[in-house]
Amino acid sequence: VENREHDYRDLLALLHPDTGRAFRVGVTGPPGAGKSTLVDGLAALWAGAGARVGVIAVDPTSPFTGGALLGDRVRMGGLSAHPGVYIRSMATRGSTGGVAAATGDVARVLDAFGFDWLLVETVGVGQIEIEIMNICDSVAVVFVPESGDGIQTLKAGLIEIAQLFVVNKADRPGADQLVTELEHVMAERRNSHAWSYPVLTTEAIHRKGIDRLAAELDRHRMFMQSDNRLAERRCQQALAGLENVLRERLHDYLREEPATDRWLATLSQQIATGEVDVHHAAGLIWQRLRGAEPGSAQEE
Amino acid sequence: VENREHDYRDLLALLHPDTGRAFRVGVTGPPGAGKSTLVDGLAALWAGAGARVGVIAVDPTSPFTGGALLGDRVRMGGLSAHPGVYIRSMATRGSTGGVAAATGDVARVLDAFGFDWLLVETVGVGQIEIEIMNICDSVAVVFVPESGDGIQTLKAGLIEIAQLFVVNKADRPGADQLVTELEHVMAERRNSHAWSYPVLTTEAIHRKGIDRLAAELDRHRMFMQSDNRLAERRCQQALAGLENVLRERLHDYLREEPATDRWLATLSQQIATGEVDVHHAAGLIWQRLRGAEPGSAQEE
Repeated sequence: VENREHDYRDLLALLHPDTGRAFRVGVTGPPGAGKSTLVDGLAALWAGAGARVGVIAVDPTSPFTGGALLGDRVRMGGLSAHPGVYIRSMATRGSTGGVAAATGDVARVLDAFGFDWLLVETVGVGQIEIEIMNICDSVAVVFVPESGDGIQTLKAGLIEIAQLFVVNKADRPGADQLVTELEHVMAERRNSHAWSYPVLTTEAIHRKGIDRLAAELDRHRMFMQSDNRLAERRCQQALAGLENVLRERLHDYLREEPATDRWLATLSQQIATGEVDVHHAAGLIWQRLRGAEPGSAQEE
Repeated sequence: VENREHDYRDLLALLHPDTGRAFRVGVTGPPGAGKSTLVDGLAALWAGAGARVGVIAVDPTSPFTGGALLGDRVRMGGLSAHPGVYIRSMATRGSTGGVAAATGDVARVLDAFGFDWLLVETVGVGQIEIEIMNICDSVAVVFVPESGDGIQTLKAGLIEIAQLFVVNKADRPGADQLVTELEHVMAERRNSHAWSYPVLTTEAIHRKGIDRLAAELDRHRMFMQSDNRLAERRCQQALAGLENVLRERLHDYLREEPATDRWLATLSQQIATGEVDVHHAAGLIWQRLRGAEPGSAQEE
């Protein structure tokens, strides 16, 4: 499914009736924030309590992927040994639509396998922040005291996609100040929302604060399961997932049909040399895609 | 053009013959690396030498955008005062395809205005890294000694899209080690490429090392302008730009046509409740997009 090979769509169609049961938690934040150690701690805690936990690591800097080039996959020693935890690391190469669609589908597969919790770990700066929201039911953002620009990043986008905020490596200088700043931002948000947007401190490496984080995630799961919230969110996720899959189709259409591929190469050349404007060229391809005759579209 | 309003496509078509002259430099890297200060220094240096410099800041944490919510635009005092420098800050909200398409188009507009250099500043973690490569002729990645995971990020993707590597805040502990590590990675790369992939140190805030960076960028510009390299790269950029514009068309198609919009809402609901598989739903929409009758597609 991840590699889009064979009859992966048929496979997903078969699995589809068994999906929708796992609660999906996204863990995001800047590189070096300790997301993997937190995910490790959460998975161990839940698995220890008898739950089945699936982990999807979509993070080039994650120890799960070994920070390695192009799909070199390493499993974390501690976790892979636990029978209740399954880890899948994914490369983040390729088009955004493709990565998002593949991540969504891998989450669907693990969901169908009957995991209670799905943890999706990803680097949170840039566009992936929006994608994790479209894949997960709950999103936790992880900061460290050193990320003094955390608040800026937060203001710039993460505030709208996250429901839990974690200051990890909380024994380091600056942690209290960051917590105060986060609390200040959240205070406003709490006034207009039913959810409490907790700000938590952890020392993931010492397994401190993980139990509190797990409890808050469980509280958010119950919150979402009340008042039709989860159903509404999953409807939004479905819409975003649908568009990602359509983007992937568009990409394949442009590459796989030899005539389109050749035409695309010619148009690119003409755009680069200034003969044709990119929007005009896109208009021609769009017409053809919409079913106009190739000849007539080219002559337009 | 940025807001996709009015007849922006006609405007771009009119400007198109005047584009392709500016050399486009992307400056990317993790938040807090000092990208804006570097861009500020480069622009001041070039403008001081008589060049016309355009700056596009696509960075939620940039002081150009004020790190502010949703499109609150602030201009940097020093730069906006210089008559040779024009700054445009852009919000990064919305779909990836949309942001990339809009950034490419804004670059085209500034290009047509006759700027010699275009500096595109963006946060480099996540998918935007690939987009900056598709918009710019030259990409510089900025690290700081604190970003110990810099090498990991580099390995995970930036190495393939950047031609210059900058260790900023080089007076801080750890700078020498980071430079050594980067040099180690580059040594291998230099063997198989004609370009030298320089590793530079700067203290942007003290204006140290900017002249060397400017000289290396100029050297890369000349390198690209030889042996047809720039023409080839711009052809690749055109191809990527074309796909971004087509993604935008797809997005608009899904939202703007009332019948499709309603159908999309129904399908999302059915996916969320488990009645329909996302790939099956995408197949139905794709058929309709390709020109099949709406009725027949729905009944398929």
